[in-house]
Amino acid sequence: MGKGRLEAFSDGVIAIIITIMVLELKTPGGFTLQALGALAPTSFMYAFSFIYVGIYWNNHHHLMHAVRRINGAVLWANLHLLFWLSLVPFTTRWMGENLDHTWPVVAYGVSLLMPSIAFGILVQVLIHANGRDSALARAIGGDLKGYASTLIYVAGIALTFWRCWAGIACYVLVALIWLVPDRRIERNAPLPTPEA
Amino acid sequence: MGKGRLEAFSDGVIAIIITIMVLELKTPGGFTLQALGALAPTSFMYAFSFIYVGIYWNNHHHLMHAVRRINGAVLWANLHLLFWLSLVPFTTRWMGENLDHTWPVVAYGVSLLMPSIAFGILVQVLIHANGRDSALARAIGGDLKGYASTLIYVAGIALTFWRCWAGIACYVLVALIWLVPDRRIERNAPLPTPEA
Amino acid sequence: MGKGRLEAFSDGVIAIIITIMVLELKTPGGFTLQALGALAPTSFMYAFSFIYVGIYWNNHHHLMHAVRRINGAVLWANLHLLFWLSLVPFTTRWMGENLDHTWPVVAYGVSLLMPSIAFGILVQVLIHANGRDSALARAIGGDLKGYASTLIYVAGIALTFWRCWAGIACYVLVALIWLVPDRRIERNAPLPTPEA
Amino acid sequence: MGKGRLEAFSDGVIAIIITIMVLELKTPGGFTLQALGALAPTSFMYAFSFIYVGIYWNNHHHLMHAVRRINGAVLWANLHLLFWLSLVPFTTRWMGENLDHTWPVVAYGVSLLMPSIAFGILVQVLIHANGRDSALARAIGGDLKGYASTLIYVAGIALTFWRCWAGIACYVLVALIWLVPDRRIERNAPLPTPEA
Repeated sequence: MGKGRLEAFSDGVIAIIITIMVLELKTPGGFTLQALGALAPTSFMYAFSFIYVGIYWNNHHHLMHAVRRINGAVLWANLHLLFWLSLVPFTTRWMGENLDHTWPVVAYGVSLLMPSIAFGILVQVLIHANGRDSALARAIGGDLKGYASTLIYVAGIALTFWRCWAGIACYVLVALIWLVPDRRIERNAPLPTPEA
Repeated sequence: MGKGRLEAFSDGVIAIIITIMVLELKTPGGFTLQALGALAPTSFMYAFSFIYVGIYWNNHHHLMHAVRRINGAVLWANLHLLFWLSLVPFTTRWMGENLDHTWPVVAYGVSLLMPSIAFGILVQVLIHANGRDSALARAIGGDLKGYASTLIYVAGIALTFWRCWAGIACYVLVALIWLVPDRRIERNAPLPTPEA
Repeated sequence: MGKGRLEAFSDGVIAIIITIMVLELKTPGGFTLQALGALAPTSFMYAFSFIYVGIYWNNHHHLMHAVRRINGAVLWANLHLLFWLSLVPFTTRWMGENLDHTWPVVAYGVSLLMPSIAFGILVQVLIHANGRDSALARAIGGDLKGYASTLIYVAGIALTFWRCWAGIACYVLVALIWLVPDRRIERNAPLPTPEA
Repeated sequence: MGKGRLEAFSDGVIAIIITIMVLELKTPGGFTLQALGALAPTSFMYAFSFIYVGIYWNNHHHLMHAVRRINGAVLWANLHLLFWLSLVPFTTRWMGENLDHTWPVVAYGVSLLMPSIAFGILVQVLIHANGRDSALARAIGGDLKGYASTLIYVAGIALTFWRCWAGIACYVLVALIWLVPDRRIERNAPLPTPEA
């Protein structure tokens, strides 16, 4: 029950984050295809951030599914994750207007890096609350993908100071890593069926 | 439970999409009935899109009700549907300002067509996850209405290049098709009552 | 379960309606108490609309609590109610800027009248779905307060054409009627306790 | 169940309040680090208000967890709390633009003080509904932290008329008091585990 409300609140916040970004899409300044085309960079950024926040929702869903026990520290670690995610619409907007400038791309990278660190902290706090022998701890295992993402984000932010496209390539790489379904966790802790 | 959270997240996103469109309604530039009347096209578009998104929520509700089993692919197919739905407020706004221009009406048609395709994909992914013999597969049947809608949207988009009103007429036709309750599904899989 | 999702979606939409109105509150054009005071009419309207939408949430909560059975018609009657409620932020904004002009006050009255009619339709559709002998039908009884509100709204809209304050007084009267808890329904169908 | 929907609605409203504040963060007027740095005061305010609203969600979560019985008065006391919380994005925006002026800081303090009073009222109404001997009444105990926060807010508002930073220091102090997990309540009414 406590867990249910944590999930419901997180669902609400993530649903709002993922949806309000469309409010940033300004109406084209005209009624031609060219006017619409001028929005391509912002639209690309919107789709990109939608996928990112979607990845976090999916991972949050898989993670919480294996959780048995939560406490006050979990509530705060979860709010910490939501805080960093809530900055994504802001950095999305800034980078969408400045795709070829260093600092906006760096800021976007940081707004992807921080939730990845916060997710790692949430995992640790949950393992602490559920015990090292819990189904959760076993299901997470080494969390290779999590550590890899954090490292690639750091590399992407560093590379942006050299070339913007190099940083963006790193960010895209992380998205690709996660878009491949995490079969390992799903196999260990399959989503429940109503019959079960 | 996994299904429950998928529904809760979809409810959240759809609730936001359907509601934030009213933020686009600008205050009339005056305090007369004429000032209010000048908002008629935007208001008409708002009501229209509200009905469309409402149709998707209803269909999503009916569809998920018959679902027994979800997996990672279902999560992504569902997010894919939500992504296209999230563009409706944007195209609504653009078409509301340009009711008699080709590209805005085409863009609106595309923002209705894509969720209809995404809904079809979600149905297939769900049938794959639940089995060809499942209650879901039987309840969906041939999904005639789904295929018809997709075709009429394509026709509407094509006709818009000839006359805008012809495209709009096609869009309205699809809404009418769905506003008639889908008695077939409801008969096969009636909404549960607490007694049951 | 079906009922649960209807409630969750309605909660989401009503939560957004009641909250986004604060986005309309513009920052005072300065840092003095006078600058803040200039926002008094808008703030008053915000509080007023918050109470109205709150009343609808409360009544929706009480109504759905007694419901055993829903169907496709209920889904649409509910969406119809949510549609009219979703216009409240728009009319609130317009009236907040034009408290002493006829049409904005009329528009606000209409945006209160329509949900009251829609709520009455939802009640009838629910009684139809649950049967004339159901606990719901008995709990609702004559729905005197509902009919009275609708009539007072009509009177308020009419009186606005004579004097704005007369219309506003009628609107306030309805709020007062509902702020007094509906002891009759609560007595017949008390909110459940976890022990029960 | 009744309690579940109250929680769901509160979660929705609080999720929106905590998230829409990021819409207020304006895109930097340029693509340099300096342009981003100019947003420091607003960003600081955003993080600060995020923590405050997060504290209320946590306390609401802990409070409702111990609740067995709700009634009409609880619904209104809860809406009253949500109303004051909903003003936080507004005062956050105003103070973010005027960190060194008395009235914006006072207004922010009032927007923190009022929810703290409303929370106290909600606690009393809940104790009244659940009985002086209930688990809730025992779990709350003297509610020392609640009374202390209210007093420190009052002191902070008063001190702001002397020096803005003194008021801000008081507000920060309350946040620190609550960021330390409320072990007392958690010990008396531990969050449930699915096994239980």
